[in-house]
Amino acid sequence: MTRQLHLNAFLMSTGHHEASWRLPESDPHASVDVGHYRNLARIAERGTFDSLFLADGPVLFSSVGQRPSGTLEPLTLLTALAGATEHIGLIATASTSYNYPYNLARTFASLDHVSGGRAGWNIVTTAGAAAARNFGLDEEPAHTSRYERAAEFLEVALKLWDSWEDDLVVGDKASGVWGDTAKLHPPEHRGRYFRVEGALNVPRPPQGYPLLVQAGSSEDGKRFAARYAEAVFTAQQTLGEAQDFYADLKARTRAAGRDPEGIKVLPGIVPVIGDTEAEARRREAELEEHIVHEHGQRQLEQLLNVPPGTLELDAKLPADLPPESAIEGSKSRYTLVVELARREHLTVRELIGRLGGGRGHRTFSGTPEQVADTIEDWFGAGAADGFNIMPAVLPSGLDLFVDHVVPILRARGLLRTEYVPGQTLRERYGLPRPANQHVGDRAAALAAR
Amino acid sequence: MTRQLHLNAFLMSTGHHEASWRLPESDPHASVDVGHYRNLARIAERGTFDSLFLADGPVLFSSVGQRPSGTLEPLTLLTALAGATEHIGLIATASTSYNYPYNLARTFASLDHVSGGRAGWNIVTTAGAAAARNFGLDEEPAHTSRYERAAEFLEVALKLWDSWEDDLVVGDKASGVWGDTAKLHPPEHRGRYFRVEGALNVPRPPQGYPLLVQAGSSEDGKRFAARYAEAVFTAQQTLGEAQDFYADLKARTRAAGRDPEGIKVLPGIVPVIGDTEAEARRREAELEEHIVHEHGQRQLEQLLNVPPGTLELDAKLPADLPPESAIEGSKSRYTLVVELARREHLTVRELIGRLGGGRGHRTFSGTPEQVADTIEDWFGAGAADGFNIMPAVLPSGLDLFVDHVVPILRARGLLRTEYVPGQTLRERYGLPRPANQHVGDRAAALAAR
Repeated sequence: MTRQLHLNAFLMSTGHHEASWRLPESDPHASVDVGHYRNLARIAERGTFDSLFLADGPVLFSSVGQRPSGTLEPLTLLTALAGATEHIGLIATASTSYNYPYNLARTFASLDHVSGGRAGWNIVTTAGAAAARNFGLDEEPAHTSRYERAAEFLEVALKLWDSWEDDLVVGDKASGVWGDTAKLHPPEHRGRYFRVEGALNVPRPPQGYPLLVQAGSSEDGKRFAARYAEAVFTAQQTLGEAQDFYADLKARTRAAGRDPEGIKVLPGIVPVIGDTEAEARRREAELEEHIVHEHGQRQLEQLLNVPPGTLELDAKLPADLPPESAIEGSKSRYTLVVELARREHLTVRELIGRLGGGRGHRTFSGTPEQVADTIEDWFGAGAADGFNIMPAVLPSGLDLFVDHVVPILRARGLLRTEYVPGQTLRERYGLPRPANQHVGDRAAALAAR
Repeated sequence: MTRQLHLNAFLMSTGHHEASWRLPESDPHASVDVGHYRNLARIAERGTFDSLFLADGPVLFSSVGQRPSGTLEPLTLLTALAGATEHIGLIATASTSYNYPYNLARTFASLDHVSGGRAGWNIVTTAGAAAARNFGLDEEPAHTSRYERAAEFLEVALKLWDSWEDDLVVGDKASGVWGDTAKLHPPEHRGRYFRVEGALNVPRPPQGYPLLVQAGSSEDGKRFAARYAEAVFTAQQTLGEAQDFYADLKARTRAAGRDPEGIKVLPGIVPVIGDTEAEARRREAELEEHIVHEHGQRQLEQLLNVPPGTLELDAKLPADLPPESAIEGSKSRYTLVVELARREHLTVRELIGRLGGGRGHRTFSGTPEQVADTIEDWFGAGAADGFNIMPAVLPSGLDLFVDHVVPILRARGLLRTEYVPGQTLRERYGLPRPANQHVGDRAAALAAR
């Protein structure tokens, strides 16, 4: 069989273009309408996507004056979508900086049980002081300490998911023995950031662990991904950069003692589809006309960590921006934006137009054939194991992709035509079910350390 | 119309009797089977119950050796059940000691949106050192400080739910104005236990706030309930005690400046139903035979805070037990158990039998007529506004109740025969939708303080 593409549908209210809500077809209230998301999930399942994905931060990100703000909490929404779908994976973003490991491990284990092994966790450390101030802190913790905490958080979560061996439950009614207590392994974890003593109160989930996903492309982020991640979402603007990122991440994963096949790389793509190239361009231009550039300017100033009023809409970025090392927020996004502007000699106004479409992800407008071609090119050129599909407008952009691009990818043998019944998300991504650290080879390896 | 009963179905794996899993009909794996819970939810909806309820603590409570342990996290499970039902309320227990207010307020707001206004929050402070040790603490916080924290937690949650005025969203596509920023009210909360600066990232939920439920009957618990709770679950063994509790709680609520009609009191009842009294007794006896008393003895010693081996199965409780004031865990449960044993002159073995059936809640075995009679008696005698129905065995006990007791209650005009379409949980309990604290009379009242 031809190597298979992995497709993930990145859902976001009325679409990934910041002005999508202003189109006549869009519902400004879509972001809290479970019916809207049920519809999107079913379209993605019709297109035999691997999974759905929701981004998240525990903070009101954007200004409510300018665009749809506030949404449903991802684990809640994806749990609701589990019941409305049968096969598709459900990947929720959740923060290691602003959760307790016991609670989050429970919730993901519960979603995995409820969905029959379809849960995934996009592990983020959450940039920004605004989020920190919702959790009793004055400033955001430093980038490095957020990632240290994330690694310890993950170790605790793995211990909690492994705290029940898979075959703990005996259920012997005659003797009155429900479970084998010897197969319970309380973490008794005492680390730098967390102390967690007891076993999880949820049996080991169907997948062992939810699919572990990561999305930050900073140095700390890539090191974390190489160690833990099984799928990586990334923003890559050019084929060359995407190839470099792909090769680097696979090499790092090998260096960390893991099979590089065990980490799937999915760049984001914002497809704007038309019957003709001209039609696609027209759709893109229609969206761009609805951008309010003054709002984008303030956001860009925040991202670049420069004082308000520094940027001018019709000038280029200042030459003296700080290096990535001086940024404590989202490092990789900072660098991506600065490099995009410099490489393409964009004015601030043009840069805002580009970011408004995909927030740094690659926008590609064209016919269904052209979209399928670019996907196949990147997939075949060592730049991607699949794609994070981010339609500019929802639901119409996802509908167009499923009705017109998916059939081409299927005809080329790159994408499944139907789901394997009962397959877990992990199986669909071609990943093994992790052994319990207290059982068999892993237990022996741990004991020998 | 006759005053209407409120019925809540308290769901728990194979039933509220600790030996229920050992019956031939029971599935020992039911506690993580969403299909089992979907079935229960639909039975309760067929019986036009007001709501479903799940207890919780972020800790593995009971020994896995003895009975089904580990379950699905309640907010996740109830979100899954929201999609499988249309009308019934969804009340999840969640701890104010082991959650961040921002996260919990978000999740309840999201469940309320997803379910169309059917969310309820049973607010608990979580007793026990074992839970504390899953969250970085060595010992459980003192009872009083847990309740102080709970009150501040609730104030923060109310501020977060009120941080969006109901009509904030403008959605003006032409001008590009999505929301009215003047109607956003970040909490900027700085208290003893919490600092939470920003607005919630979820619009105000359909009910304004989820239904606020409370279940502790200690002095601290009753004070908290009088101030905040709209429904109270309570364990009451005798009509006299239930009447005293009811009158006391209504008086306290009035004294707190609230309408006593605004707090509904629902004692728990464990109905064991048979075609004849003898048949019901036989069912009760069958369950009791399956109890392992040695396990119960250890649990009782923990509850009473006495060293292992203190109790003897065929003797009465020791005379020199500590007073409730010396207990930092679950005070009201401690007192209930000690009083039950003394009032009925029970041996430890008999006490364990009684507790195994309903963990301190009132077990009532009889015919459907007798069960309906006792419900009507208590309801009419100022002891209850409704009941928390806790079937000893699930699903069969709930099925029996809905098929045989519900029709009698309906024939007597005490219980609805169908749901009012689109009614929120709060409306079903006859409670007003709370005004936003930043709007109208409440804003004026706040400003005048």
